[in-house]
Amino acid sequence: MTRPRAVLVVTGSELVRGERTDLNGPFLAREALSLGLEPARILIVGDGEEELEAALRTGLDADLCVTSGGLGPTHDDRTVELVARAAGVELELREGLRAEIEAVSRSIADRLRRPYADFEEGVTKQAMLPAGAVSLGLAGTAPGSVLDTGGTVVVVLPGPPTELQRLWPRALETAAVRRVLARARPPQRRVLRFFGASESAIARALREAGGERDGVEATICARDFEIHVDLVVAPGADALADELEGALVAPVEQYLFSRDDRPVEAHVLDLCRARGLTLATAESCTGGLVAARLTGVPGSSEVFRGGIVAYANDVKEAELGVPAATLEAYGAVSAEAALAMAEGARRRLGVDVAVSVTGIAGPDGGTPEKPVGLVHYAAVGPEGTLVHEFNVPGDRGAIRSRSTVMALHLVRRLLTQS
Amino acid sequence: MTRPRAVLVVTGSELVRGERTDLNGPFLAREALSLGLEPARILIVGDGEEELEAALRTGLDADLCVTSGGLGPTHDDRTVELVARAAGVELELREGLRAEIEAVSRSIADRLRRPYADFEEGVTKQAMLPAGAVSLGLAGTAPGSVLDTGGTVVVVLPGPPTELQRLWPRALETAAVRRVLARARPPQRRVLRFFGASESAIARALREAGGERDGVEATICARDFEIHVDLVVAPGADALADELEGALVAPVEQYLFSRDDRPVEAHVLDLCRARGLTLATAESCTGGLVAARLTGVPGSSEVFRGGIVAYANDVKEAELGVPAATLEAYGAVSAEAALAMAEGARRRLGVDVAVSVTGIAGPDGGTPEKPVGLVHYAAVGPEGTLVHEFNVPGDRGAIRSRSTVMALHLVRRLLTQS
Repeated sequence: MTRPRAVLVVTGSELVRGERTDLNGPFLAREALSLGLEPARILIVGDGEEELEAALRTGLDADLCVTSGGLGPTHDDRTVELVARAAGVELELREGLRAEIEAVSRSIADRLRRPYADFEEGVTKQAMLPAGAVSLGLAGTAPGSVLDTGGTVVVVLPGPPTELQRLWPRALETAAVRRVLARARPPQRRVLRFFGASESAIARALREAGGERDGVEATICARDFEIHVDLVVAPGADALADELEGALVAPVEQYLFSRDDRPVEAHVLDLCRARGLTLATAESCTGGLVAARLTGVPGSSEVFRGGIVAYANDVKEAELGVPAATLEAYGAVSAEAALAMAEGARRRLGVDVAVSVTGIAGPDGGTPEKPVGLVHYAAVGPEGTLVHEFNVPGDRGAIRSRSTVMALHLVRRLLTQS
Repeated sequence: MTRPRAVLVVTGSELVRGERTDLNGPFLAREALSLGLEPARILIVGDGEEELEAALRTGLDADLCVTSGGLGPTHDDRTVELVARAAGVELELREGLRAEIEAVSRSIADRLRRPYADFEEGVTKQAMLPAGAVSLGLAGTAPGSVLDTGGTVVVVLPGPPTELQRLWPRALETAAVRRVLARARPPQRRVLRFFGASESAIARALREAGGERDGVEATICARDFEIHVDLVVAPGADALADELEGALVAPVEQYLFSRDDRPVEAHVLDLCRARGLTLATAESCTGGLVAARLTGVPGSSEVFRGGIVAYANDVKEAELGVPAATLEAYGAVSAEAALAMAEGARRRLGVDVAVSVTGIAGPDGGTPEKPVGLVHYAAVGPEGTLVHEFNVPGDRGAIRSRSTVMALHLVRRLLTQS
């Protein structure tokens, strides 16, 4: 049984020029997938008439076509007109909608101290919908709408991601979209997160477990040394998924750190919270990224007390109490310095657990003995200490973000082993 | 005169499912634009045969079609086969290429301690190219290639962004791609970066300056309170662009902070460097993000000496010397606390300039007097002090990243006004 196909048409000249990264296509794709549809393609086009019309025509091959963007008041905003043309229906003015848009536009005109007359033409344009379309109401001044062409249900949504995400749930409640969803089979999603294994080792484990099965799709994705495996399991395929999951995990179980989507910093905070431990950071090459990841989690202030970004050596000495002799004898990028930094943060910030990172992020500063990418880590806690050294590949940005993840996993290991 | 059209076909099931955000389409679109091509569409599809073949066929309508992904050793990797099919040519084994891939694969096999025989089938598959295609050499084990179908030049590149970006310059040197570029007219790109003005104020300035002209395309994009305007200027349209730029900038000139792509933190570091000043940070709600932005810039260690992430109040007292009385009387989220934090960082870390941020990032911790989003900033330097208060809209992530940008702009203002 095939799933209904969804095609996502995203319009915006800044998107097709690569000046801004599209968020709507991935959002709608994840939604489609979780609703049991098959996200078949994401099509990003500018606001040129020909390209957009061609894109919409390929959308009309699908069961569900969702468009984003091109609903504004100007002549460049052509989505509604071209959806109508592609579907072979006329545009019609919706008086109730016009009045609603007028009210919003009058208040904008007031705020900008401009005459409403400047807005009038745009208001009328935005109140035109394809004959037979259902309005989803306004986000800003643009109305979303749903048109059932017989073969395809077209959902027309505004481009700003927050507005699109606000109108999307309303689209799901329309009779037309419900008819498509009635033929869908929402899958279950299973998540496996590994750290410390290579992508090829996980790929091999998947292959040797027999690979994807009917109704079980697997995606492997490497991100800053973590390997994320997602299993998308069709209804009725649970037993097959159990079998695949068991066989996949068995040879690499020591690297599995999560069966949910929470990032490693959330695990670290939870491990601390469960044991009543407080946490601090001492960073050199990551320059605050470890602290930033930890404090990105709501409620982190219960556990995380603070951090020192010690970029200059004398800050390492003065703020973290790293002995000048250690820096002289071993250098700032050394296991000894990393350990002294973590111990210093623990003592100075009065916490139970501290983690440190010191390394050479490049592009300059490398030597034959200590090349760009060499990074030392230390984690200290009430029951022990872990140090780690790694030659992190990549450019400055990659070295910094990968080192951040490695530091967080080092604390996680410290907290799970003791 | 129309520009040659470029269509970008990106394949990867994790991309079409929205599980990972595509970076290759935007990269290639920016490249196409700067080379004087028209990036006409970005098409993201999975690795299913039918969808990918249909996507490649629409690519063959363009002057240049660039594909990314689907070059691996397994049966799911179908790009080369389907490019050949869409172009109506046979696949052929390239013996030199096969030997090259074999050498790489043998060393991988050694490292993984697996028999080379496991790799042999994949090696042969990866060494097949469409008849007439030019190899671009290897990135990993996958060869990029260029095929001229007569009407369309197809560039086939691997999916991992670093590998794609490594092979892309080689594609530009092939005779086939050069023929397409000979018909292109590389535009000039002008960049205007504003801070402190609303997007609608800049949009109005653009409109009142007469809007886009023939040969001058304008994009406005808001990002963390900065407004980025890009002008793409066709050859010969310089005078029109000068006129538009002048008229656009005049009413909003006080908000213009850059005419290049450098982020605000690079401006801050340059301003410090030019005057021999050192810099430090003191952060609460941004949790290290300001320091992380500054240390993301290569060479920042010349200027940036360190930072304190003072999440808990007693860390603000102990590490930044914020008086307990200040915290008691005004609270940690107050102009007084922000100022004491910046002054403390300046004194404790021995720097010339320091910036601080303290606020309520939410979702919890807000009160009627101090709601979620209330943030105080202070910047102190040898010649003065600036404080700022703002109710930052958005969720926790938005409040944190917007506050980071606001803090950086506050230091920039301090350094440019004195």
